[in-house]
Amino acid sequence: MVYGDMEMEILREGERLDDLQIKGYEIIQSPGKFCYGMDAVLLSDFAKVKAGETVLDIGTGTGILPILLEAKSRGAHFTGLEIQEESAEMARRSVLHNRLDEKIDIVTGDIKEAMKIFPKKFFDVITTNPPYMIGEHGLTNQNDSIRIARHEVLCDLDDILRESAKMLHPGKGRFYMVHRPFRLAEILMKMSQHGIEPKRMRLVHPYVDKEPNMVLIEGVRGSKPRMTVEAPLIVYEKEHIYTQEIEKIYGLDQGDRPYGTRRL
Amino acid sequence: MVYGDMEMEILREGERLDDLQIKGYEIIQSPGKFCYGMDAVLLSDFAKVKAGETVLDIGTGTGILPILLEAKSRGAHFTGLEIQEESAEMARRSVLHNRLDEKIDIVTGDIKEAMKIFPKKFFDVITTNPPYMIGEHGLTNQNDSIRIARHEVLCDLDDILRESAKMLHPGKGRFYMVHRPFRLAEILMKMSQHGIEPKRMRLVHPYVDKEPNMVLIEGVRGSKPRMTVEAPLIVYEKEHIYTQEIEKIYGLDQGDRPYGTRRL
Repeated sequence: MVYGDMEMEILREGERLDDLQIKGYEIIQSPGKFCYGMDAVLLSDFAKVKAGETVLDIGTGTGILPILLEAKSRGAHFTGLEIQEESAEMARRSVLHNRLDEKIDIVTGDIKEAMKIFPKKFFDVITTNPPYMIGEHGLTNQNDSIRIARHEVLCDLDDILRESAKMLHPGKGRFYMVHRPFRLAEILMKMSQHGIEPKRMRLVHPYVDKEPNMVLIEGVRGSKPRMTVEAPLIVYEKEHIYTQEIEKIYGLDQGDRPYGTRRL
Repeated sequence: MVYGDMEMEILREGERLDDLQIKGYEIIQSPGKFCYGMDAVLLSDFAKVKAGETVLDIGTGTGILPILLEAKSRGAHFTGLEIQEESAEMARRSVLHNRLDEKIDIVTGDIKEAMKIFPKKFFDVITTNPPYMIGEHGLTNQNDSIRIARHEVLCDLDDILRESAKMLHPGKGRFYMVHRPFRLAEILMKMSQHGIEPKRMRLVHPYVDKEPNMVLIEGVRGSKPRMTVEAPLIVYEKEHIYTQEIEKIYGLDQGDRPYGTRRL
C-alpha cells in the first residue's frame, strides 16, 4: 500500500496505520497510548461468531476486535463500546477507513450504563479484553488512558460480568474473554455467580515449558456447569520463531503477504 | 527381589506386589478392584511436604500417596483415611511390608466423620485423589468397590472440602488434589467458598496438542486469591514414549533400575 493523501486525512499526530493481514484491512494505532496486543488477536481467534449473529465488544480500544471478527466471521453486526472518547474516535476512523461503518458501530459509553445505552437489546455474543490489574483506584494525570485500559480503575470484573449477563440472550448468549491466569479462580467463580457458566478455556503459554500468561475463556449465559479445557496454545517454537498456530492466527502463513509489512 | 515366603504371607488371592521405583518400596494392588493410577503418582510429585509436617490423605485406597510421600519427603507423619475396610486392610499390609508402620497410619473411616476420627487435630497438608464422577447415587451389587472410588457415591467434593477446611492449620495448611478438568470451574469455586484458596494449578495433557485429562491443584487454607498456573505437564513425547518429566516422576530415569520390573 502506498501511503498518500488518504493517510494524511485519516491519521492524527503520533498515529500510524497498520496492516491486519486479513481482507486488506488496516487499523489506526497510537503508539504509547492506544495499541492492541496479542491478547486481542488471540481472542478474535478463540471467539466463535456464527452467521447472522450480533456482537458487542466491551472496552473496544482501537476497535481491533470488531474489525477482526467482522473479517473472520459472517456475523450480522458488531458494536464496540469504549469509555474513552479519544480512543473511540480513533476506532471510528479505523472503521470508516475500512468502509465498515454499516457493519460496525463504535459507541462511547460506560459498561455500567449498558442497559441505558442498549435498552431492551440482547446480543448473541459478547467479547472483552478488559483491564487485567486489580486496584490502583483514582486517576493520576500521567498516562491515564493506558491505566484505564490496564487497571480496574473505571470498571472491574464484576461490572463486566453483571452487565454482560443482562445483555446476553438467556440460555444461549456466549461470552468470550481474555485475561490473566493469576486471576483464574476468581474469574471462573464470578462468571458462575453472575450466571455466565464457564464452558471452554484455553491457556496461552509463551513456550511449552513456561507458565501461561493469558487465559481465553468462553462462558454461556444460563448453561450447566461442565467445561472443556483445550490443548495449550504455545506462542513461540523457539526464540523469535512463532509456532505454526500463531502464524496462522496472524495470517502470516500465506505464501505471499499481499498486505505489506507485518507488524506483530 | 526374590519372591519367597514373605510374599506368600503378605498377599491374598488375586493380589500382586508392585515395585514403586523408590527406596525399594513395594505396594500391594488388587487388579480390577483396588489399583492406583497415574493420577496418584503425579499428585505425589505435585504435592510438597516439608520436613516435620503431618499429612492426611483422604480416600487413600491402596495407600499409594502416604507411601510415595513418605519416600519423597521428610514429613513427620502420614495418615491415610479410607472408607472401604477391605482396601484399608490391604493398604495396612503394604505399610507393614515396607516397615513404615511408625510413619504411616491407615485409618478406616468416613471423611464426613473426620472431626470425630481426628478430634482437635490439625494437619499441615491434606492430599486427595477423590472420586471424579458426579451422581450415580446408591450402590449396585457389582463392582461397588470401584464405583465408590470413582463416583461420588459416599462423599462428594463439598464433603471433602468442608472437612479438609476444618482439619487444615488456618492460614497455612495446604490442600493438594488431582481431579478432572471438566469440573475445573466448580472445583475452584468450591475451594474458595470453603476457605481453601486455589494458589497453584497444573494441567496434565496426554500429548502437547491434546486436551488435559487431569488437573493438579494446590490450595491454602485462608489465603488470599491469587494463583499461579504452571507449565503444562505432558505425558507422552510420542506413542508409547513418556516425556523426560514423566520418566523422572516415575523414577525411570535412573541408569540402572535396581528395584525390578517397572509397571506403570
